[in-house]
Amino acid sequence: MADIPIRFGIIGCAEIARKVSRAIQLAPNATVSAVASRSFDKAANFAKANGFPPDTKIYGSYESLLDDPDIDAVYLPLPTSLHLKWAVLTAQKKKHLLTEKPVALSVAEFDQILKACEENGVQIMDGTMWVHNPRTHKMKQFLNDKEKFGQLRTVNSCFTFFADPDFLKNDIRVKPDLDALGALGDAGWYGIRSILWAADYELPKTVTAFRNPVLNEAGVLLECGASLLWADGKIATFHCSFLSNLTMNLTAIGTLGTLHLTDFIIPYQEHQASYTTSAKPGFNELVTGWVQLPSEHTVTVDLPQEACMVREFASLVANIKKNGAQPDKKWPTISRKTQLVLDAVKASMEKGFQSVEIVG
Amino acid sequence: MADIPIRFGIIGCAEIARKVSRAIQLAPNATVSAVASRSFDKAANFAKANGFPPDTKIYGSYESLLDDPDIDAVYLPLPTSLHLKWAVLTAQKKKHLLTEKPVALSVAEFDQILKACEENGVQIMDGTMWVHNPRTHKMKQFLNDKEKFGQLRTVNSCFTFFADPDFLKNDIRVKPDLDALGALGDAGWYGIRSILWAADYELPKTVTAFRNPVLNEAGVLLECGASLLWADGKIATFHCSFLSNLTMNLTAIGTLGTLHLTDFIIPYQEHQASYTTSAKPGFNELVTGWVQLPSEHTVTVDLPQEACMVREFASLVANIKKNGAQPDKKWPTISRKTQLVLDAVKASMEKGFQSVEIVG
Repeated sequence: MADIPIRFGIIGCAEIARKVSRAIQLAPNATVSAVASRSFDKAANFAKANGFPPDTKIYGSYESLLDDPDIDAVYLPLPTSLHLKWAVLTAQKKKHLLTEKPVALSVAEFDQILKACEENGVQIMDGTMWVHNPRTHKMKQFLNDKEKFGQLRTVNSCFTFFADPDFLKNDIRVKPDLDALGALGDAGWYGIRSILWAADYELPKTVTAFRNPVLNEAGVLLECGASLLWADGKIATFHCSFLSNLTMNLTAIGTLGTLHLTDFIIPYQEHQASYTTSAKPGFNELVTGWVQLPSEHTVTVDLPQEACMVREFASLVANIKKNGAQPDKKWPTISRKTQLVLDAVKASMEKGFQSVEIVG
Repeated sequence: MADIPIRFGIIGCAEIARKVSRAIQLAPNATVSAVASRSFDKAANFAKANGFPPDTKIYGSYESLLDDPDIDAVYLPLPTSLHLKWAVLTAQKKKHLLTEKPVALSVAEFDQILKACEENGVQIMDGTMWVHNPRTHKMKQFLNDKEKFGQLRTVNSCFTFFADPDFLKNDIRVKPDLDALGALGDAGWYGIRSILWAADYELPKTVTAFRNPVLNEAGVLLECGASLLWADGKIATFHCSFLSNLTMNLTAIGTLGTLHLTDFIIPYQEHQASYTTSAKPGFNELVTGWVQLPSEHTVTVDLPQEACMVREFASLVANIKKNGAQPDKKWPTISRKTQLVLDAVKASMEKGFQSVEIVG
């Protein structure tokens, strides 16, 4: 008999929940069991519009979903300012937690959520999808190849998109009471994560914000960036913005090799994803051309990256539920490091763009 | 009757002079007339090894070449620390000057060279080749397209190569008495130039060096970078290094479009060169893929970019020589701005990575 899938409840009918609820349905070990909104009708319409199973339970309040004993895990796509309350409640109700990023508004908040999860023995994972793409594992193999890539020396990560006037006026990501971290929490989260990913999650020693942050009238970041420096001399920079054309470039340069891709967060196509590598290229004799061009690699993606994420999360939950395993610590550790750097970027801005030490 | 080509004298037998002397021979309006080294034999061997015309004059001293009345222009590939002396002498001998970059060790030196050129009515141009590639003109058209690219918002430029132990010990670019600017003058020059190019040569308001400079024992930069900020909120970053794998990425992002290429200084191939553009791309409904992929554009390059450079320089010289025109001011202005930013990066480092204002 096949294992019973992990039963998800979705708290909040955000746009991103459409994509993730589809992913839950695509993942072989997960199913959508319930959806809650502050309005019953909104939840019902959301379930219908997104083709949820007919027996999906509809709740008109988040609390009632959390009280349902037949829900194993919660997917939390609420605005960041609501994470602390609902993530902690989710944990207290012994539901495992897949939460949208940024996990919290600060490390202090993050640690309260983490504490609740640990005390209640539930798994927590943040909704960063691209790290679950099979392409990401292939790319990591290249970065780990000492003969082809050598030692990591520098990373540059950029995620920008051009928000329309409606977004800049009404989206939760520009509201100080909803997603107060703005572009840093939304787009910058990916930049920071990609840098940490390339650095094997070794925290930088210092973070220095660029002197260009753009804020809206309410004081929410619409654009910013920073440089990150490690004790061994590695340096990384990221730039994030709601004010520039959609671009998502990642370049990691080692002593011997370079990894490069231009769609690292959302692959151009769902079922295949590419990246380029170069290893010890050089010039021809007169330096009028290269003797070795970067190679393009394409990875087949059977399951979309967000479904890979759900599958990974559900597998950890199943291991706890069926085998009595302890919650995995890898994913919350990675999340917390991302949040730590994010805090440091903010602190650097607040200190007049001084260099801020990271305390791990 | 065809115009008589501009007659070049080459002062110094540096490795780069092999490429540029070939370019002089390829350019339709230029010819190699003489080569000088401090050793007659070295100059003679260099002429032979590089297939110079049999009537090329060989000089055992730079001075004797400069005294030759049948030389119109000098190509100066000497170490940067020697530029001031030989560039000024070249100008005083009424020879036009194509000089390797960096033009000088500082703006103060640059201005002495410029003054000598202006007083003697000779053209000066620096040896930055990629700006003369036909690809560069095509890319600029895209950046100027307000409907496809919008307003420039950010630029990221990276030029690194992995120098071998011999280079790091013996190359002139790691010697404080020869090329004291090290990686900043050699590789960083291109990064700064590419940023200024994308910004229509509008100088940034401030420059802030990254806190990662790597210096050798003699105090010469092997790796560094900086962020540049404009009054209108544009930001650019560059990174340059002798310690990381060969990489040369340039990304310019506007409000509506993105320009990207990974071989901006030396195109992968000599006779064709590519770049990608994207204009107002977006995601599909569930944000699981892009609805519009970046387009790749390939430009045919009939004449290698370094020969395009020589052709442009020789054409300006011919206009002065034959038509009594004034020396062109565009190229020295661009060179000087590059040197200004370079000075500011150094100043920022010297001031503990503080932000330094650019005074144009």
